Amino acid sequence: MSLNVYLSGEIHTDWRQRIIEGCRDIDLTFSSAVTNHEASDAAGDLLGDEEKSFWRDHKSAKVNAIRISTLIEKCDIAIIRFGDKYKQWNAAFDAGYCAAKGKPYITLHSEDIIHPLKEVDAAAHAWATTPEQVVELLRYMVSDQ
Amino acid sequence: MSLNVYLSGEIHTDWRQRIIEGCRDIDLTFSSAVTNHEASDAAGDLLGDEEKSFWRDHKSAKVNAIRISTLIEKCDIAIIRFGDKYKQWNAAFDAGYCAAKGKPYITLHSEDIIHPLKEVDAAAHAWATTPEQVVELLRYMVSDQ
Amino acid sequence: MSLNVYLSGEIHTDWRQRIIEGCRDIDLTFSSAVTNHEASDAAGDLLGDEEKSFWRDHKSAKVNAIRISTLIEKCDIAIIRFGDKYKQWNAAFDAGYCAAKGKPYITLHSEDIIHPLKEVDAAAHAWATTPEQVVELLRYMVSDQ
Amino acid sequence: MSLNVYLSGEIHTDWRQRIIEGCRDIDLTFSSAVTNHEASDAAGDLLGDEEKSFWRDHKSAKVNAIRISTLIEKCDIAIIRFGDKYKQWNAAFDAGYCAAKGKPYITLHSEDIIHPLKEVDAAAHAWATTPEQVVELLRYMVSDQ
Amino acid sequence: MSLNVYLSGEIHTDWRQRIIEGCRDIDLTFSSAVTNHEASDAAGDLLGDEEKSFWRDHKSAKVNAIRISTLIEKCDIAIIRFGDKYKQWNAAFDAGYCAAKGKPYITLHSEDIIHPLKEVDAAAHAWATTPEQVVELLRYMVSDQ
Amino acid sequence: MSLNVYLSGEIHTDWRQRIIEGCRDIDLTFSSAVTNHEASDAAGDLLGDEEKSFWRDHKSAKVNAIRISTLIEKCDIAIIRFGDKYKQWNAAFDAGYCAAKGKPYITLHSEDIIHPLKEVDAAAHAWATTPEQVVELLRYMVSDQ
Amino acid sequence: MSLNVYLSGEIHTDWRQRIIEGCRDIDLTFSSAVTNHEASDAAGDLLGDEEKSFWRDHKSAKVNAIRISTLIEKCDIAIIRFGDKYKQWNAAFDAGYCAAKGKPYITLHSEDIIHPLKEVDAAAHAWATTPEQVVELLRYMVSDQ
Amino acid sequence: MSLNVYLSGEIHTDWRQRIIEGCRDIDLTFSSAVTNHEASDAAGDLLGDEEKSFWRDHKSAKVNAIRISTLIEKCDIAIIRFGDKYKQWNAAFDAGYCAAKGKPYITLHSEDIIHPLKEVDAAAHAWATTPEQVVELLRYMVSDQ
Repeated sequence: MSLNVYLSGEIHTDWRQRIIEGCRDIDLTFSSAVTNHEASDAAGDLLGDEEKSFWRDHKSAKVNAIRISTLIEKCDIAIIRFGDKYKQWNAAFDAGYCAAKGKPYITLHSEDIIHPLKEVDAAAHAWATTPEQVVELLRYMVSDQ
Repeated sequence: MSLNVYLSGEIHTDWRQRIIEGCRDIDLTFSSAVTNHEASDAAGDLLGDEEKSFWRDHKSAKVNAIRISTLIEKCDIAIIRFGDKYKQWNAAFDAGYCAAKGKPYITLHSEDIIHPLKEVDAAAHAWATTPEQVVELLRYMVSDQ
Repeated sequence: MSLNVYLSGEIHTDWRQRIIEGCRDIDLTFSSAVTNHEASDAAGDLLGDEEKSFWRDHKSAKVNAIRISTLIEKCDIAIIRFGDKYKQWNAAFDAGYCAAKGKPYITLHSEDIIHPLKEVDAAAHAWATTPEQVVELLRYMVSDQ
Repeated sequence: MSLNVYLSGEIHTDWRQRIIEGCRDIDLTFSSAVTNHEASDAAGDLLGDEEKSFWRDHKSAKVNAIRISTLIEKCDIAIIRFGDKYKQWNAAFDAGYCAAKGKPYITLHSEDIIHPLKEVDAAAHAWATTPEQVVELLRYMVSDQ
Repeated sequence: MSLNVYLSGEIHTDWRQRIIEGCRDIDLTFSSAVTNHEASDAAGDLLGDEEKSFWRDHKSAKVNAIRISTLIEKCDIAIIRFGDKYKQWNAAFDAGYCAAKGKPYITLHSEDIIHPLKEVDAAAHAWATTPEQVVELLRYMVSDQ
Repeated sequence: MSLNVYLSGEIHTDWRQRIIEGCRDIDLTFSSAVTNHEASDAAGDLLGDEEKSFWRDHKSAKVNAIRISTLIEKCDIAIIRFGDKYKQWNAAFDAGYCAAKGKPYITLHSEDIIHPLKEVDAAAHAWATTPEQVVELLRYMVSDQ
Repeated sequence: MSLNVYLSGEIHTDWRQRIIEGCRDIDLTFSSAVTNHEASDAAGDLLGDEEKSFWRDHKSAKVNAIRISTLIEKCDIAIIRFGDKYKQWNAAFDAGYCAAKGKPYITLHSEDIIHPLKEVDAAAHAWATTPEQVVELLRYMVSDQ
Repeated sequence: MSLNVYLSGEIHTDWRQRIIEGCRDIDLTFSSAVTNHEASDAAGDLLGDEEKSFWRDHKSAKVNAIRISTLIEKCDIAIIRFGDKYKQWNAAFDAGYCAAKGKPYITLHSEDIIHPLKEVDAAAHAWATTPEQVVELLRYMVSDQ
């Protein structure tokens, strides 16, 4: 049994690496949006300059959306990470998108943001607080038991 | 021509009332999640006490989700409002849910949160900064021109 | 706001009546499979006698399935009741059907069957132990708050 | 021609082994939920202790549901087994889920539970009483005739 | 409870009238393709003459298909009638269309064509031999039991 | 029998009026995008000025798209009109959208553009050259024959 | 470019072999129902004897339906063949099924049954009269032009 | 990460070659309709002569549609090119088809046709003016950042 796992959300800590590393010996394929912050913000720049920041953001976000929606469509499960900084509305957006598409997802966040994330957690299949728990869940999911 | 409009997001300002009021004379039906904050947080309490806040939140969020997903399923268009306080991850979740279901939505937020909302705006059909603009868009949409 | 509510499961106690009665003054439409046990078992008899009980059951179950699948398709929410007798596999079947169709459902059962119902409860939006709790949840769902 | 076959239900007899063994020389892929009873019940324990058995069960069932719904989504056909012990509501839930998703399934159960399983059998493509019959059906399905 | 019933197939006997008549006092809506044979064959003639009979048939069949697919989409159940004359491939086509769309249907035909109709009957929810049986099934389906 | 008819395409001749007029006495509901050219081009202007014509067009087109996609979703049949001027790519876009959604459509255009419209006509259910033919087709479709 | 081609219908002439042979050197995968008439009719016999021919046919047809619906689901295009004998309602059923699922199909039949097949041809992408034409169409479809 | 890219539209310039060439070293699969103009127009000729040009075009367009709809169904992203000649309604049709199917697409056209393409661009994820920009977008999309 093999699974495609989409990793959504926070790009400023090493949670992606820790999950991928912990699953190195099992049959999983991981994918993500472009996680290089500057490259991501500039994704649409090659299509021409914009004076208004709204349109610059708009073009880049839409270019990134092609990749993101394609990867969510192909994944079997998503891990959606909320860190302790920034708005992270894109992570919540991905969660809603997964819920509507019937893609199961696991949230990964600390205990202090339980209340504002209650709607996102309500549609999740599990809530983890460490990448190591996610690793253990993924290992369980593809085990031969 | 008649439209069902779902109003999602911020519950601490009067944006819902201003939109509903502005559309009083045209053929629109508006709906929302329960917007009484305390009632919403307590939606699952009647099903038994919980010691852990996670489970209290979980039960209430799931009860609310029945209403929310039903209303989004029935709506023709959603208005998704981000205010200047709180995390508002549920609004971003609703936006992602609408996007995946092919329900068009209009975002309503001020200019200073353009950047963190770029993914949410990228999938929107319009971005408005005042309820009055939303009123004008809705009036246009059902006009006889 | 109006809701179509499908009532699935146990036919030997008065839970349906108690829910319908408790919601008499609000805008809900209730539906059920044929709950007259003998009529239900004989639903296919008019199409000819069968020597094997398998085929008699088969014909009746398929006739009933037309009604059931149509009503689940039309409902906004299902209440799925497990009593303390009989196998009630049809109720679990309806729950799986609702889950796959994205129809939210509330389970109604006592505490002593939590463990065998864990997969059914895992996909539910709420678990209630009394019809009165269901009434309260439904009233909340269509309230004007 | 190759087929993905999902094996759902009873975990206390050797029906899975007998089917897999009987199909060893043909092009089928078999999958199952985790069938180690204790591992399955404990699937969510790593996410933290729960005092209430409902939540312990809930967390584990949801973790297992990720695997189950993914495998049903990927399968071409399901075999759904009802033994002579336990409630086995999860097997009936899987049957309803398959029916709603348009996934064909074969039930495998003895003659004495025909009546309570009539709704589950009504949506099945075949009813078998022994694993060897299932083997023969699967061999027929991928044959070159 | 109300149902939309689509009547497909044979146009040379009075089975439609007998069903509609028998259900006069209950809440059902019946629909059909245009059953006037000559009008149906000429449905596309107003769009211009054709020398080849293939294209004349093609244009008419496509005009009729608009009505038929719309009505099947709107129906809750279809009755599919095979008489003892003609090829009636359109009735079998409608049956396959219903099966793929998840619309339940009842076949109505005599015993002597069981074998050639076995695939059509296999996907049906019931097989009746007289319009009166269909009436009884429909009355059962919307009954208050 | 009633039908919702969506009228797409050319806005510079009176084809819409002639169809609506010709169907005045039968049970059809007609809808269209906003057909006032200037109002349509300015649909997004209230959301703020744009220096680049691309963004002005973009905002207006997206506002109009809310109405258009909602109406196509609700229609039973579309009439798609190509006149003898302008690019009319939006009409071809609507045709492709209808085809993918399984909405039947009739094209309305003169004989001299058969070749460039062959892909659009290939997915249509009929090709008419005058509004009066469309009227006759619609009258046929809802007739009681 | 590779295609999965499902071959449906007549089993008494060599049309399948002629198509497969003609495409031997290109990248196509062909599939069919079990075309051994006796094996097909007996597909359900191993599940127990039936006195009534209806149930014997029913069981076999449902076993065959698992294979057929799976193959249609996996195919990119179907070829649907009507010969000059037998009722061949299963071929028309497959055509309707394909139409509803959005699977393109080509019909293969002689000129003398154009009229009774008009509804089946109306939803087809092409009508061929010889297997060699089908071969040519398939070769064209995967060509590098 | 690998992507299937469908190239739709103009066949008279070398834009396809430039994109394919520019992506030679990355993991993309490209597909197109048959782009040999004469072969495409003659796709249905082998099925018999037609006196009316409408039917010749019709047969060829439907044969081509099998390939096109199959390729769009399989693609992850489409590039839709509008040149400066011809009507190109088929390209706009493909865009509408992609939009309805939720397939992201990038338009490729010069600045002088912004206005007539506004509805097509409104549903696109990006607008490029040169094949080299498309190459850069595709390279970004599958990058390892």
